[in-house]
Amino acid sequence: MAGAGVVAAGVGAAAGVATAGGGTDPAPTPAPVAFRGEHQAGITTPAQDRMHFVAFDVTTRSRAELVALLRDWTAMAERMTRGEEAFPDGAVGGIADAAPKDTGEALDLPAAGLTLTIGFGPGLFDDRFGLADRRPEALIDLPRFPGDDLDPRRTGGDLCVQACADDPQVAVHAIRNLARAGFGKVAVRWSQLGFGRTSSTSTTQATPRNLFGFKDGTNNLKAEDPAGLADHVWVSAADGPQWMVGGTYLVARRIRMHIETWDRAPLREQEQIIGRTKGTGAPLGQQQEFDPVDLHVKGAGGVPLIAQDAHVRLAAAESLRGAKLLRRGYNFTDGTDGLGHLDAGLFFLCFNRDTRTAFVPMQQALSSRDAMMEYIVHNGSAHFAVPPGVQDGEHWGQSLFA
Amino acid sequence: MAGAGVVAAGVGAAAGVATAGGGTDPAPTPAPVAFRGEHQAGITTPAQDRMHFVAFDVTTRSRAELVALLRDWTAMAERMTRGEEAFPDGAVGGIADAAPKDTGEALDLPAAGLTLTIGFGPGLFDDRFGLADRRPEALIDLPRFPGDDLDPRRTGGDLCVQACADDPQVAVHAIRNLARAGFGKVAVRWSQLGFGRTSSTSTTQATPRNLFGFKDGTNNLKAEDPAGLADHVWVSAADGPQWMVGGTYLVARRIRMHIETWDRAPLREQEQIIGRTKGTGAPLGQQQEFDPVDLHVKGAGGVPLIAQDAHVRLAAAESLRGAKLLRRGYNFTDGTDGLGHLDAGLFFLCFNRDTRTAFVPMQQALSSRDAMMEYIVHNGSAHFAVPPGVQDGEHWGQSLFA
Repeated sequence: MAGAGVVAAGVGAAAGVATAGGGTDPAPTPAPVAFRGEHQAGITTPAQDRMHFVAFDVTTRSRAELVALLRDWTAMAERMTRGEEAFPDGAVGGIADAAPKDTGEALDLPAAGLTLTIGFGPGLFDDRFGLADRRPEALIDLPRFPGDDLDPRRTGGDLCVQACADDPQVAVHAIRNLARAGFGKVAVRWSQLGFGRTSSTSTTQATPRNLFGFKDGTNNLKAEDPAGLADHVWVSAADGPQWMVGGTYLVARRIRMHIETWDRAPLREQEQIIGRTKGTGAPLGQQQEFDPVDLHVKGAGGVPLIAQDAHVRLAAAESLRGAKLLRRGYNFTDGTDGLGHLDAGLFFLCFNRDTRTAFVPMQQALSSRDAMMEYIVHNGSAHFAVPPGVQDGEHWGQSLFA
Repeated sequence: MAGAGVVAAGVGAAAGVATAGGGTDPAPTPAPVAFRGEHQAGITTPAQDRMHFVAFDVTTRSRAELVALLRDWTAMAERMTRGEEAFPDGAVGGIADAAPKDTGEALDLPAAGLTLTIGFGPGLFDDRFGLADRRPEALIDLPRFPGDDLDPRRTGGDLCVQACADDPQVAVHAIRNLARAGFGKVAVRWSQLGFGRTSSTSTTQATPRNLFGFKDGTNNLKAEDPAGLADHVWVSAADGPQWMVGGTYLVARRIRMHIETWDRAPLREQEQIIGRTKGTGAPLGQQQEFDPVDLHVKGAGGVPLIAQDAHVRLAAAESLRGAKLLRRGYNFTDGTDGLGHLDAGLFFLCFNRDTRTAFVPMQQALSSRDAMMEYIVHNGSAHFAVPPGVQDGEHWGQSLFA
């Protein structure tokens, strides 16, 4: 947390810090998040407020070119997460007759807690790059879930990069510069902006609300629970493959919420669907947000207070043979649906140690029985193997291509 | 500025304040922006960091129903700009068997500098509501400009509401609740999220950068220049019509930037296109960002340092018979274009006293001759009459419908 109290005079307004009402108060600039380590940053890092997520198709057929890109990306990413330009003096310090090596829109901005997290999709493990025998068994092609209405333009991808930051301009700048460096080797397949986090990944964070108005992520795995993370998030040596040890699997789902319909549901029904009270976020039958969910409390007539089809019941580890995952979702609003409504919802991101035994059974339970399904539709989906963190001198994908 | 130093414990993380790196530092919560006054808020208000803009089609044919909606919206808007719910105790304080009157996702959030600004489009002045003879002459149907490639799904609208706030969740919540209250009377025609401001509307603000990486809005009219605002922004009694006195005209343009092409242009060319240096933002031939633009400085061989087709030259008041406007633009990134690129750009908003003599000649000059046109395309456009501020007891549109 060193530096968290340091004031960066003059950058407050541009750094996404509240300055309305003519505010000129500089605000604390958080310390950059370390890029290297045992695990990639951006997973258990306390969830930043904003996100830009991109999925790429790899267009080059050259393994060497792909590896070189991953090497270049690593250096760029490390610099940008320190609050530096993608290339040293890249925006304005180069030759006037050459295109700047950094696009410049984050020049005056601090790191803003930027993390960049890479993942490898199933498509990378075909016959193009000699990786067919390195595909993790856990990196399955996701099954079709009941109610899925997947848009191919929001689905899949050979590579992904998740950029999270407290200033959206910093996240967008990072994705843009990586995309730019990949010109001719990768093409943007889809991208998603998330304007507000809907998960807490640390006990230091207040629980945010999703666009149903409910607190989301109360029961999430947290950074302060290393045993839980070891059990449910990080790939172990016993799991294999070796190149994934210390990594995890990322599932991204674009969940359109039919907010207009939801908004017509009575408060009681909303709370029964979720299984929590809307105000405090307490589980039904409890008093406080962080009181444990008790699925066995009964109300009048012996009926469970938390309904059989309530979201918290179906998603509870108790209902899923102990399965848990780490969520890192973001609210989105992408214009309109052309039918007079906002196109809004939740960009669901989760990290799990084995998607086959965590996300898949959870989503099968939810998509089959969750009362919430009446109000949502999953219209984008992707699955990525997120390799472990890079050590000094290593680059993204080093363990995979070694 | 009263209250600008007040700390709202516990809401920092949810309020869009930088908290990465585990930061738990509460940050200053700016005072709410006054909703009522001579002019609407959200015009000269120091530009907040985030924006959600919506254009509605009016679907009711009843004038009385429309006026009633404007009255309801006014009360909701005033409450929300104070950081309150759209309706008192609207989210969780109502009857359990009724739909909550507020959607709840901003329950724990402060006002975040929220402003809500309404405008009336040309379409409102047809024969549906008896307003045909009240249409201001200045509320023209915008001409087609060279290079326009307008998408009808991003163009026009009978009504608009601009929500600006330092927390995007607060802006989205406001638009959503207004849209909800309008169900059956209005339908969302289009909406646009802006993730980062690209204009300063106050001398207290640092100049932000657009997605070309350049400082934008240096020469903008500022809140601290009432004479300039009177000359260029506010409709006077002499201008008429009476119901618009103290109001202004809003032009919205969705400007897609071909950032991939721009990023391949040499630094010198980028600076010549803009007419400023990229690093400091100083006009070419000057030293500091706020040095006056001098269109007459010549370099080697007597060639003007600021080229004939440079953006700052064409947009300068000196080149436009003194015309100026107040800009309030936002960067956007809306996924992808389906061709391997990010769909990114600038959502241009401006306010002017008479669009016929300010925005239109400026845009004609730019779209005809601006070297920047090679890198942008305007694909959305709308024009609205923004009525004056509401006084105590008044509602939005009161002067129009009186």
